[in-house]
This record gives sequence, C-alpha cells and structure tokens, in this order.
Amino acid sequence: MLNDLKQQVLEANLALPRHRLVTFTWGNVSAVDRREGLMVIKPSGVEYGVMTRDDMVVLELESGKVVEGDKKPSSDSDTHRALYLAFGDAGGIVHTHSRHATIWAQAGLDIPAWGTTHADYFYGDIPCTRRMQDEEINGRYEWETGRVIVETFGQRRLNPAAVPGVLVHSHGPFTWGGNAEAAVHNAVVLEEIAYMGIFSRQLSPGLANMQQTLLDKHYLRKHGKNAYYGQ
Amino acid sequence: MLNDLKQQVLEANLALPRHRLVTFTWGNVSAVDRREGLMVIKPSGVEYGVMTRDDMVVLELESGKVVEGDKKPSSDSDTHRALYLAFGDAGGIVHTHSRHATIWAQAGLDIPAWGTTHADYFYGDIPCTRRMQDEEINGRYEWETGRVIVETFGQRRLNPAAVPGVLVHSHGPFTWGGNAEAAVHNAVVLEEIAYMGIFSRQLSPGLANMQQTLLDKHYLRKHGKNAYYGQ
Amino acid sequence: MLNDLKQQVLEANLALPRHRLVTFTWGNVSAVDRREGLMVIKPSGVEYGVMTRDDMVVLELESGKVVEGDKKPSSDSDTHRALYLAFGDAGGIVHTHSRHATIWAQAGLDIPAWGTTHADYFYGDIPCTRRMQDEEINGRYEWETGRVIVETFGQRRLNPAAVPGVLVHSHGPFTWGGNAEAAVHNAVVLEEIAYMGIFSRQLSPGLANMQQTLLDKHYLRKHGKNAYYGQ
Amino acid sequence: MLNDLKQQVLEANLALPRHRLVTFTWGNVSAVDRREGLMVIKPSGVEYGVMTRDDMVVLELESGKVVEGDKKPSSDSDTHRALYLAFGDAGGIVHTHSRHATIWAQAGLDIPAWGTTHADYFYGDIPCTRRMQDEEINGRYEWETGRVIVETFGQRRLNPAAVPGVLVHSHGPFTWGGNAEAAVHNAVVLEEIAYMGIFSRQLSPGLANMQQTLLDKHYLRKHGKNAYYGQ
Repeated sequence: MLNDLKQQVLEANLALPRHRLVTFTWGNVSAVDRREGLMVIKPSGVEYGVMTRDDMVVLELESGKVVEGDKKPSSDSDTHRALYLAFGDAGGIVHTHSRHATIWAQAGLDIPAWGTTHADYFYGDIPCTRRMQDEEINGRYEWETGRVIVETFGQRRLNPAAVPGVLVHSHGPFTWGGNAEAAVHNAVVLEEIAYMGIFSRQLSPGLANMQQTLLDKHYLRKHGKNAYYGQ
Repeated sequence: MLNDLKQQVLEANLALPRHRLVTFTWGNVSAVDRREGLMVIKPSGVEYGVMTRDDMVVLELESGKVVEGDKKPSSDSDTHRALYLAFGDAGGIVHTHSRHATIWAQAGLDIPAWGTTHADYFYGDIPCTRRMQDEEINGRYEWETGRVIVETFGQRRLNPAAVPGVLVHSHGPFTWGGNAEAAVHNAVVLEEIAYMGIFSRQLSPGLANMQQTLLDKHYLRKHGKNAYYGQ
Repeated sequence: MLNDLKQQVLEANLALPRHRLVTFTWGNVSAVDRREGLMVIKPSGVEYGVMTRDDMVVLELESGKVVEGDKKPSSDSDTHRALYLAFGDAGGIVHTHSRHATIWAQAGLDIPAWGTTHADYFYGDIPCTRRMQDEEINGRYEWETGRVIVETFGQRRLNPAAVPGVLVHSHGPFTWGGNAEAAVHNAVVLEEIAYMGIFSRQLSPGLANMQQTLLDKHYLRKHGKNAYYGQ
Repeated sequence: MLNDLKQQVLEANLALPRHRLVTFTWGNVSAVDRREGLMVIKPSGVEYGVMTRDDMVVLELESGKVVEGDKKPSSDSDTHRALYLAFGDAGGIVHTHSRHATIWAQAGLDIPAWGTTHADYFYGDIPCTRRMQDEEINGRYEWETGRVIVETFGQRRLNPAAVPGVLVHSHGPFTWGGNAEAAVHNAVVLEEIAYMGIFSRQLSPGLANMQQTLLDKHYLRKHGKNAYYGQ
C-alpha cells in the first residue's frame, strides 16, 4: 500500500541525519496522498539506522486512524494532520529540533528576512507562534500544536506556500513543501538562515529587514510565474 | 568477572568520541552492579582507540578498592562512587568536558528549561553546584566532588532520576541513567541543550523559563506512568 | 572547446562543497579566457554531485551570449561578466553564501583587518557594498550587482588584485583570483576571517584595526615583489 | 640525518589538519635536538597532503643556517629558534592560526583560567603579547616575534614549562612541549579552552578566574611531583 510514498517518506527521514538536522530520533517526516486521503509518517522513537520502508505508518488524514503498519506513528502525527488539513498545498511535512531554528523557537522570536538566502526560499519573516495555553497543552496537545501554527498563519495573513515553515514557541521548527523531499530542503534552508540570523543580529543589533524590492526579486526569480533560476 | 557489564562500559566509553563529547581522554563512563556491590569504570588516561573490555577496572562500590584490573581506574572514580551511593536509581554515570555543558559550568550557571528538547529528558533546570571549598579541594577531592553534587540535589530537593545531570562549578558535566548507555544518551542531550541555551539567551537576554505545563507535558509523555512516546 | 578551462572550472566548483562553503547548489565558480574573450561558468541549479566538465557553459565575455553548452548558465553570470570586464587581473571568480561571510554581508558591515590571517591574503578591510537601489534590483539585477561591486572599489580606491573579495549587501561574498582555484582559495580565507572576526569583535567591541605596519609586512612577505613565503 | 626526529616532526605536522587546527598550510611544527644543536622544521608553504619526511628542513639552532633539506624552511623558523634558545625545556613547538585561539589573539586578550580543562594543562592564564613595534616588524620580524614572546614570559615571571603556550597579538597561538607531539597536544587543548572561554565570558561577562586552590589541584595532579593521573 502506497509503497512509493512510503519509500519517499523513508528517504526523506534518512536525509535528516545526513543534513545534521537531528540527534537520535528527534525528527520526523510525513507525506500525504490527497486523493486517497492518507498520510504516511515515520514510526515513533525508531532509530534512523534501522528504519525500513515497511516501518512507515499509514493513517487516515481526516480521522488519524492507523490503516497500515505494525508500529505506532510518530507522536507528532496529529500536528502533521492538522497542517495538511489546513494547508492544501503541503505534500510533505518535516519536524526537527535542528539547533539554530530551535534556538529562535526557544527565544520566541520570528526570523526576520535579512538576506537573499532567506528570500530565495521564504517570502518574508519566518513566524514564531505564540506560547500555547494550558488547556491546549493539557488537551489534544499535538493536534493543538498544529492548530496554533494554522492560527499564526491566519492572523498574520501568511500564505503557507510562500512561507513554508514556522517556529513553534519553546519547541522547534516545522517546514513543508510540495513533497517530502522539498519539505526537507526547506528544513535545511531554515536551519541555515537561523544560524546566520543569530550572528547577523549579534553584529548589528536592531538590524532592519532587507528591502522589500530585493525580497521580491529573489523570491520571484525562483518561485514566481516568471522564474528564471535553474534549468 | 562482570564481562557483560565491562562490555557495556567499554561501548559506552567508545560512544563518547563518536558523539564528539570528548577530546583525547577527557571523559569516563562507569556502570554498577548493585547486587554484587561492584562498579566497573574506564582506566585512567588510556586512549579510546586502544581500549579493550579487559582494560575496564572493577572496584568495590563501598570501599573503592580495586578488585580486578591491571590498570589504575579513572581518577574520577571516587566521584562516581559517591554518586552511586547516594543516587540509588543510577545504573551508569558519564563525565565529560563536552564543550557547551562545560561552558555553562565554567560560568557557574544552571541551564534553565527553555524548550521541549530539554523537557523531553530533564524535568527542570540542570543545576550547577556551588564552588568547592579549599578544604574539599585539598582533601579527598574527587570524593568531595561527588558530595557537592549530592548536596546540590539535596538542598534543592531535586530528584536525580528526573534530573539526570549536573554541572560541577568550574569543571564540567556529569550525567547518569539506568545504565551506561542511558547515561551517555543524557550526556548527548545535555550538550545539545547547553549549546542551544547559550544562543537562546543571546537572542533574548533575561529569557523566562518555559511554562511548567509544557515542561510537565513533555517530560511526562516520555517518562511518566502514562508515557506514550516510542513503541 | 576550452576543455582545460572547463575542467578547471568544474574542479573549482567541486571544491566548494569540500571546503563546506556551499549548501545545495548555492555557489558558482567561473574562469575567463581573455584572449578568446570567453567565460566558462557552472550551469544554473545543477547539483555538484552530478556535474561534469561538459555541463560547463561557455559565454562571450562582452555580450553574455552563450556560445556552447546545453544548459542555462548560472543566474549570476552577468555579475561575473561585469567583474571580469572591470577587474582586468581576475582570471577566476567565486560566489557563495558561505555562512560567516554572508553574516557580515547581511549585517552590511566591512570586515576589518584584525590579524595576520587576513593580512596574508587581503591588503586591507574587505568592503561591503551599499544596498542596491530599487531601479537596479528591478533592472538588469545580476549585471547591476557587479556594477555596485565595481563602484565600491572605485569609490574607495581599492585595488581588486590586492583586496580580492567583497561582500554584497544583504546577499553574500564574491572573491576572485588569478584563476578559478585561486579564487576558491580566497573564498576559503574570507570565510575563515569572517568567522574569526565575529568573535574577536564579541571579545573586544570597538576593536581597532591591526597596525598598518603589520598589515604591510604580512601582505608583502607573501605578495610583494620581495615576497619570501613559500618555495 | 636525524631521521627519527624528522619523522616525529612530519607526523606532528600531519596531526594539525586531523585535529582541525589548520586551513591550507597555515601551521608548522618543529622539534629540537639539543645535543646536536639542530632544529627540524616543516618547509614553507608545502601542502600537508604531499609532505614527506625528507621534506623536513634541518637548521642550526644558534645561527639558523640550513644544514640539510632541498626546500626553504617555514618562514616562522626564526620565531621557533628564538623560543628554543630561551625556553630550555621546549623540545617541540607548534604554530597555527587555529580559529578560537586566533580570535583571542586578534582581540589582544589573555585567556583566563576558567576551568579544570585549562588547569589540567596550563598553570594559569595564557598570556597575549603586547603589539609589536614598527621597528620590530620592519626589522628581523620573525625573530622579533619570538623575542616578544620571551619578553612576555619574562616580564610576567611565567614558567614556560608550566604555561606551554602564548598568543601573539593580532596574529595567533604558539604552543610547546617536551617533544613535537606534546606541543601539538597543547595546541589542541589551547584551541578547546579558547573556544569555551569565548562563550563562558558571553554567559558571564566579568567572570572571575577559577580559584587558585582548584587550579593548583588540577595542574598538580597531572604535572606535579605527586601527580596521580594516568597509568
């Protein structure tokens, strides 16, 4: 069942340690088959070194019910589901505790758009959510985590296709993309700009955002309808 | 004698350079057999590359007397003994000078609980001991190092099973766990959160601790009696 | 056509990930054949792992017209052309988003000459350009990027042969050299001194430049007509 | 001639990139045969990857005259000579531009003794020299560099056997030891404590030195006549 998608999800999960985004099992990637209404995700707490395609767990997107797989799905599955249900363009989602993105999440700060590396992939600041409330934490915590992300994008009128990532306050980053591989790509970029942002801000406290014109230029030369980057 | 435990201790010691927690021979792991009242520890100043199972030294937990082994035990053996005698749940102990945990130890500061990475493993701030006193340093120094750690946990009413690590002032970290491997795992986590904490604090001086509710949620979903993380 | 030069450009491009100067495809190296009036550059958005000599694209230096190659040239080609046309000694050019040089570029700051590592390769501060203007960004952006670099060297009366690198504001570094390999060498050095500068400045805010005498000594013992470094 | 010593010097030079202390050829190691009055040092500007034992250059310690070797000796040879002539216990010397030690040198600051990692190898602060004067730079520069180091130890009444390293202002570190390997060992330690010091100071500006009692304890348990560390 969904063997191709499982293989993609497996490979995307294995890409996380290769890009040094995870320690131990601290990360998970999923992908969605929207026609079937199914989501494939990494099992909970299984080491990357021994994971196989058939360890991937298949869930119903709407209900979260496991429809295939011997193992329990990632404990963050409900966050992934909430995001897929709200962000119709997301084909793959990644969650990590990558060091520098997590540093910003712990500080509770957005990552400002400070350069073309950022603008090549994220069309504006990368938002950090508000703190979660006690009833959210004590309720359906993982689902509510997704809801707080969705609320953040709604309140700030952000387009999740153009800003494919977020920092969850006191927690860490989620990124997404057209498929699992693209979501991992965005996770790598987010980590890179999180690193650079920490020290650009150290060199220049109070650093202003880059110009909107330059942000437009770089984002749109790669992603707009007149994109001309790549082959 | 205790060949299985020696093998575990050997492997846990070899995991330290693999996780980039040690330079040269600056680290040691031990484990305990509480029924036999014996502790197994790395020999002093031997390089990781040439260490074998049979280099591990066996000591009496109560007296510190070497009961097997050609080599002198780690110079930190008495610290390990003091911890095992006071912390009944500890099955393995790790000492390193891992860079970022040591940075906090040198600064003499606790590492506040600033995110879910921390909360997944440590149920609250990671304490830094007071400075040692001259008579402690000039007396049975390594034993007194353990006593100061135990004092820290006593005075702050911390449960060493829930906060499985400490920073010794002007020195470096000790971590523990149910066995040697778990103690290494906690050493890796401590290093990771020590790194992230330095820069979260740089981004947000005066950063408040994470919410208690979120700390509870993350620690208990992995460690409480209703834990639901992993398989 | 120009197979030797293509091979040099290929190898110089492959050196970028080996020196950890690039993530994904974020970097490009070119070289010039001034007699033929031709420039060889990496294709746009092709991964380093699969690139071959014959993927290199040959352009007319004056017009930018592609004269050989199946693939589109790097989107930064016009920046390279503008630099070759203005800086007659440049035989190779490198552009990356290497972390620490980019951090300075994002902060919009020159890298002061703070030590002999700097002085061994760069004869004075490494300039950061002004921000680009809207009409430059919305016009022939990549060409204008090169023009702003040239303007910076002109206004500050810098010799590009003695200061073989620059930071483009809110973007990242360009370096050059006698050939592609030398340009990569300078990119590595720039990244190294960018790293060290961040933290020298942290240790000593307001740090003064190194003495001119020492800058002279180190630059000239390697590069002056009485150079005595090396074989 | 001196084949054993040449082999030691070769191996010590090759250890520098392995410990990530050098970029390109930015480092050199020498050793001395005091009975013969000869010094063996790396050739100038030769890459580590292709260096062989027979590339090592033999010099007269007193005069600096090359007595064997096809290649020019390291341009820093006169600094090494000045140190051997003044520091009678030094059997090997290392010079690098290792990142974090160089950061302190560029800032012109001593590295305070802030923890037991430091105290295990360096018996007190690691001094940074004064800036060199114009006549020193324009005179016999490399020799004068050594003289300024010797002056620093003299004026502060430091024992070079107990503080086996120094930072040259606006330049970088030199370390020494009983032989070439020990000097490399101290270079690694210096880099490690330089790294940790930067961030301990960030966490706690104005951080006081560690207690003298603890410094004594750690240094002397490894180096004093009653040392008990190691086998």
